[in-house]
Amino acid sequence: MLPFSRVAIIGLGLIGGSIARAVRHHMPTVALVGYDGDPAVRARVEELGFVDDVADSAGAAVTDADLVMLCVPVGAMRAVAEEFAADLPAEAIVSDVGGSKASVLADLAAALPGATIIPGHPVAGTEHSGPDSGFATLFHNRWCIITPPDGAPEAAVERVRSFWEQLGARVEVMDPRHHDIVLAVTSHLPHLIAYTIVGTASDVEEVTQSEVIKFSAGGFRDFTRIASSDPIMWRDLFIANRDAVLEILQRFTEDLTALQRMIRWSDGDALQEHFTRTRAIRRSIIEQGQDDARPDFGRAHD
Amino acid sequence: MLPFSRVAIIGLGLIGGSIARAVRHHMPTVALVGYDGDPAVRARVEELGFVDDVADSAGAAVTDADLVMLCVPVGAMRAVAEEFAADLPAEAIVSDVGGSKASVLADLAAALPGATIIPGHPVAGTEHSGPDSGFATLFHNRWCIITPPDGAPEAAVERVRSFWEQLGARVEVMDPRHHDIVLAVTSHLPHLIAYTIVGTASDVEEVTQSEVIKFSAGGFRDFTRIASSDPIMWRDLFIANRDAVLEILQRFTEDLTALQRMIRWSDGDALQEHFTRTRAIRRSIIEQGQDDARPDFGRAHD
Repeated sequence: MLPFSRVAIIGLGLIGGSIARAVRHHMPTVALVGYDGDPAVRARVEELGFVDDVADSAGAAVTDADLVMLCVPVGAMRAVAEEFAADLPAEAIVSDVGGSKASVLADLAAALPGATIIPGHPVAGTEHSGPDSGFATLFHNRWCIITPPDGAPEAAVERVRSFWEQLGARVEVMDPRHHDIVLAVTSHLPHLIAYTIVGTASDVEEVTQSEVIKFSAGGFRDFTRIASSDPIMWRDLFIANRDAVLEILQRFTEDLTALQRMIRWSDGDALQEHFTRTRAIRRSIIEQGQDDARPDFGRAHD
Repeated sequence: MLPFSRVAIIGLGLIGGSIARAVRHHMPTVALVGYDGDPAVRARVEELGFVDDVADSAGAAVTDADLVMLCVPVGAMRAVAEEFAADLPAEAIVSDVGGSKASVLADLAAALPGATIIPGHPVAGTEHSGPDSGFATLFHNRWCIITPPDGAPEAAVERVRSFWEQLGARVEVMDPRHHDIVLAVTSHLPHLIAYTIVGTASDVEEVTQSEVIKFSAGGFRDFTRIASSDPIMWRDLFIANRDAVLEILQRFTEDLTALQRMIRWSDGDALQEHFTRTRAIRRSIIEQGQDDARPDFGRAHD
């Protein structure tokens, strides 16, 4: 049974484009309409052909939809919802893929009074952006978190759950505020740290840019991947989830200061104990299928 | 022309075992003797057979060598050099693979007065450790930094250079102190940050370990790879390269504080500018063959 038969995707970058390709693959009879605010993206999606129809406006995209999936940066959610509010069918479900959920729920509820809003967040992606970067298997075995508001119709939640499961994802339902603190830990802080260290490395006077690049295989290059994610998406996320990010960042800074002190005092035992403890968590991540089991993420070595 | 014909490898973990396998592959006529302080490792290497002979002591390993390659944690360099000092042939060159170079040069010079010491550091590795984890292509297209002391014989430097080039590496000669600041940026700080964030994530009370693992694909899992590197190796490196690590860490902390302030004040323009700047460096790393060009490091997505 298909949970939806006419899906509108607003925002046709990495995630929107991957959802479209995955729907094509897993639910080929679903009618797909796409819209993006950028005319160049719309033109490119016409060429790529991963939706049945590219609409000229957000309103035209949603007019026949039973699912409207918003795949725009979280700072743009409210404005784009206001754009199509007048055209939204009463029975449609509105969902999204934004990385902060309390802010998105508030923004969509304000823009779409009376609509059935079931926000979501597939925890998946790559460092690439744009309509060419998506692929149908992006959500396979990844988790999608659904954060319905209090009182949301259970049937609507189940349809959104079914949608993601049919794309190959595993689904967890969560309170929006809890989502925001969990993702501050597993996604927002890692990105903030990666963006910081890549900036720091670029600015050390004694070390040339060329040296940073040549010798990046010592560990640095790992950080450059997530530090090349979409800048606007991340600008919006840090602002939308500010309180949780700042709280977790404070924890991180305290822990870093503790390690700094161990180094300053050459406390080898404490360092070794800390470094041993952190090994176990990677084992669990691999055992649970959340990372590539091959050494070095499966990077090519020849 | 082979730069060496009888190579002794002391320490048979990831790097020592990879050098042995690479020598076998690229210079099959070279005689290889191995030694490791751990009897269990020696027994395993006998089974794996990647050296011609497993010696019973460091002294017995070096007695016929024209190259002695030390592949032990940097904190163990001096003690192991003292172990074989009396058996070292006068014409042998002693080199190593340690990740800090000023400390290693001082330790080896103290333990081996009069010996020809040409320290080195192949900037390559994986998160795995031990004799089973090595492979022959680990150094292909990676950089090896050679840090000869003042007055080192040029011919000896060229032989060590040739050795690494024949294993597929690219070689750069550098002052030991400059090496230590460059690697503090490209390797030691990234590892310290990764070890910190993995610890922080494990300790946040509001988020369960199970949630950290499930939702790690949001970015966190990238850090767990380097935070599962060998704890003793890293304990030693942070202590051996303390001054450079603390200096670079101070820079990082200042930069992180600046980003924290941008978030607190919702300064979207400044955030976006920073995040845009960090994109370029990954492009250069990929263009120069120092990372996998495929999205997501080439991780499997199905």
